[in-house]
Amino acid sequence: MTFQQKLDAMVTKNNSLLCVGLDSDWEKLPKTIKSTEYPQFEFNKAIIDVTHDLVCGYKPNSAFYEYLGSEGIRQLKLTCDYIREQHPEIPIILDAKRADIGSTNKGYVSFAFDYLKADAITLHPYLGKEALQPFLNEKDKGCIILCRTSNRGAKEFQDQLIDGDPLYMVVARKVVNEWNENSNCMLVVGATYPDELAHIRAVAGDMTLLVPGIGAQGGDVEKTVKAGLNSKKMGMIINSSRGIIFASSGANFAERARAEALKLRDEINQYR
Amino acid sequence: MTFQQKLDAMVTKNNSLLCVGLDSDWEKLPKTIKSTEYPQFEFNKAIIDVTHDLVCGYKPNSAFYEYLGSEGIRQLKLTCDYIREQHPEIPIILDAKRADIGSTNKGYVSFAFDYLKADAITLHPYLGKEALQPFLNEKDKGCIILCRTSNRGAKEFQDQLIDGDPLYMVVARKVVNEWNENSNCMLVVGATYPDELAHIRAVAGDMTLLVPGIGAQGGDVEKTVKAGLNSKKMGMIINSSRGIIFASSGANFAERARAEALKLRDEINQYR
Repeated sequence: MTFQQKLDAMVTKNNSLLCVGLDSDWEKLPKTIKSTEYPQFEFNKAIIDVTHDLVCGYKPNSAFYEYLGSEGIRQLKLTCDYIREQHPEIPIILDAKRADIGSTNKGYVSFAFDYLKADAITLHPYLGKEALQPFLNEKDKGCIILCRTSNRGAKEFQDQLIDGDPLYMVVARKVVNEWNENSNCMLVVGATYPDELAHIRAVAGDMTLLVPGIGAQGGDVEKTVKAGLNSKKMGMIINSSRGIIFASSGANFAERARAEALKLRDEINQYR
Repeated sequence: MTFQQKLDAMVTKNNSLLCVGLDSDWEKLPKTIKSTEYPQFEFNKAIIDVTHDLVCGYKPNSAFYEYLGSEGIRQLKLTCDYIREQHPEIPIILDAKRADIGSTNKGYVSFAFDYLKADAITLHPYLGKEALQPFLNEKDKGCIILCRTSNRGAKEFQDQLIDGDPLYMVVARKVVNEWNENSNCMLVVGATYPDELAHIRAVAGDMTLLVPGIGAQGGDVEKTVKAGLNSKKMGMIINSSRGIIFASSGANFAERARAEALKLRDEINQYR
């Protein structure tokens, strides 16, 4: 089964375009959790237990685990193992924003797909298709390329004009027309830029877009959904991290996370 | 002491622009090493023991350690600890090619500088200066930005013309003129592209360039050195990985690694 098939099945089953970002910043974990042996894993387990029927996927960001070195990586693996054992139908997107030259990427491919057994990974485009081939060759895995990122300073390079077209559109066209031979490519487009999202949708056909930036980062749900849906009223993975997982820092964190996830899933569906 | 000062001191002490890439691919390790508890660490220790008087720095590439998950990260840390304890004067460049949006980068900053205690890290430019600020704020650490990479397909985006200038030159100018407020930026430029290296040197002033691609990747030493030196006849970190560390796969691997490192260091110096 490919990542796209797994994703589409979950979008249908949970009637959801919502992805929960497991950005489990150690410093923000509830006090009761911090005293356990594997706090990031315990926290993630609690979040997964209360949101698994509301999401189309989970997206742990590697940075929050690398923060703790090998102990963090262990907790990232425990988290991925838990999702796969408890909910094998839910796709795992490793947000690692990797990209090295060809042969070196094999290490990252193994980390993402053999060790963590994730279903997809986010990637930087700067080194080009040839460098990313070890990822692109993984037919059943998703290769989600950074296109227009959600941060304030994204425009510095991404809006540089090439023959009248901003760089992010050059990236979008190349990924859609030249990189997607295995039908396993997707694009990252920030919800903080709905106009750019619409431009990218116009050239992306029905390709799925990973859309971070809703919630804490300020992206507007209605504008985002209307700009990003494909012809099947899906084709978006809309990610929220802090707004859901850290909705409360108290003992009721899981309950509040579920409430926020439910609210956001339904708000997204309202505009589909 | 800043990374630049530490580096310059080693360049002078060892009369060397050579950086040894600790790309300790598990599959390529000598058989005798593979049976030890921490094979990547044991291998690196042997390489460090025989090359520390010949190098200006060591550059472990994170991908080769992530390959083994948390156990690999542990061996990467053991390696960095060993360098720092045995040879505290030798700079460690973590080749991790990271870059996320602002707050998330704090995890990578901690991984590189608090956990591994590396002196510098390589970074993707695509998200812009604003995103990389958590790295740039680390005044004593080196931020080495990918500019013109050594791979065959580097040109796909890096040669796209913006007002007549290729993207890699736009990146070079921005890093040199706008990102370097803390005098802690450097650029990655592949030895496989000596003409581009000369163009970048022309706008980079005396900024240090990290130059991979010598040896196994095919970069020519004479052309590379002549194109990349700064006005002080230094300003280059010339990296070789496989050509040195895997010069022999037999029991004499360390001896052969030293011989190759010595040869390359001296060949580089011949053109300074």
